[in-house]
Amino acid sequence: MKQLSNVPDRIEFTPIGILHSPYRTLDEAPRWGTLSDEEAVVEVFEEYADGLDGIERYTHLDLLLYFHQASRSILKVKPPHSEGLRGVFAARSPHRPNPIGLTTVRLVKREGRFLTVTNVDAIDGTPVLDIKPHKD
Amino acid sequence: MKQLSNVPDRIEFTPIGILHSPYRTLDEAPRWGTLSDEEAVVEVFEEYADGLDGIERYTHLDLLLYFHQASRSILKVKPPHSEGLRGVFAARSPHRPNPIGLTTVRLVKREGRFLTVTNVDAIDGTPVLDIKPHKD
Repeated sequence: MKQLSNVPDRIEFTPIGILHSPYRTLDEAPRWGTLSDEEAVVEVFEEYADGLDGIERYTHLDLLLYFHQASRSILKVKPPHSEGLRGVFAARSPHRPNPIGLTTVRLVKREGRFLTVTNVDAIDGTPVLDIKPHKD
Repeated sequence: MKQLSNVPDRIEFTPIGILHSPYRTLDEAPRWGTLSDEEAVVEVFEEYADGLDGIERYTHLDLLLYFHQASRSILKVKPPHSEGLRGVFAARSPHRPNPIGLTTVRLVKREGRFLTVTNVDAIDGTPVLDIKPHKD
């Protein structure tokens, strides 16, 4: 039961693009994107391509991803290298009620609606929800 | 038309909480949360409260918010202090196809399922989608 009647129960988003990543499975993906120099490509769908204007001025971007393989019902996880369970809001596990991934990537180059980036930790085919300039 | 058939067209999320903020309107809210020391409270709904276990160990959190008053159809914006239009993915405007706000806040204290935070730039009643430990 929601405490305030003006909070929407359901919020609908639609992917603005897709991630083409060298990692095919969760096991292949690095724990942190910063551990990897592998290149990945963010493909922005044509209908949203105008939203990329001027993005070349930034060296780092925040990608918001939809972790489509995550479990939404888990509220406790055991992070690697830590003991015991912890709440999902105290962890960066992909498993969470709204499995939105946040990863800061380095922008290598833009070719039209394709962004080549490094420091990605998500798997191939991950839907992209949003792209923002990274704020230090 | 999506280029890959396995990309979902619609993704549904549900708020895990709500932001109680001193700012009632977009005009009152600071341009950047870091410009303000005002306290705000993140209320996590009871069904998700277990997800907060251990969150006290962090001084800074990333809040993912749903900018429920934003326009989703705008692809170009004019950021303050800049000339001309720019793509929404090259700006941190609330107006974007999937209006998800990302703001890093300082955790002042936790009382049960209520988190007192500072450095918030969002208005009162903003739905909260996710909370993550901030990664420097």
